[in-house]
Formats: sequence, C-alpha cells, structure tokens
Amino acid sequence: MVTTTYQVQGMTCGHCVSAVSAEVGAIPGVNDVQVDLASGQVTVTSEDALDTASVRAAVDEAGYDLVDA
Amino acid sequence: MVTTTYQVQGMTCGHCVSAVSAEVGAIPGVNDVQVDLASGQVTVTSEDALDTASVRAAVDEAGYDLVDA
Repeated sequence: MVTTTYQVQGMTCGHCVSAVSAEVGAIPGVNDVQVDLASGQVTVTSEDALDTASVRAAVDEAGYDLVDA
Repeated sequence: MVTTTYQVQGMTCGHCVSAVSAEVGAIPGVNDVQVDLASGQVTVTSEDALDTASVRAAVDEAGYDLVDA
C-alpha cells in the first residue's frame, strides 16, 4: 500500500470534497481518498504508486487544480 | 406570476448553486430559480406568492440559511 498526499486548490465546500473524492476514488488501484477541506490536502491510499498525471486528470475532471509539489 | 428575491448565506461554489436550485425548484408552484453565487441572491418565479417558511425549509434542506429580510 502507498499513501500519497496531494495539494488541491479551489475546494470550498462539502460538495467539492465529494466531487474530488469520487473522481480520485475512481482511479484504478485507489483504495481510499481522504480530503481535508480546510487545508486542501487530499490523501490517497493505493495498491501501488500512482502516476501523478492520472491524479491531476481526476482532480481536473472534478473541476479543481492540483498544486505542484 | 410572482418574482421574489431571497438572500441565502453560505453558498460557495457551483455545487451549492445546484443544490439550492434543485431544492427551491422542487417547491410546488415554482417555475424558475435563478441563483447569483457572488451576491447570494436567489430569485424565484412562482405561480402565486410563496410561503417564506417553505422557501426557508428548502434552503435549509440544501444545507444553507435564508437571511431574514
């Protein structure tokens, strides 16, 4: 299991959290997604290390931006 | 037709707008709901004058607060 924390910009409410959780959670191999609205931190647990591009695409699909580390 | 504008507190994004529009739009007699996110103004067009309590209940159901005029 791999746990990675990403920084997401633009989430303002619980609906935003749900949208990001759903999209990131749909990435193959993802087991769990925890979103902290206040900090914008999205913690993803997956079977193997994820391709950042796939996480970025999922966050973008939800309507938000992944902040570069 | 009656058009009434209400002030709603707490909407922060497009998802909030959708939630309020859906709940207020489901009130019997309501024909149209226009939400301005920036100002929090919700303009409702209905067949007859609405009971403010029903609008308040719908806004509350969506997770937001109607501000007293």
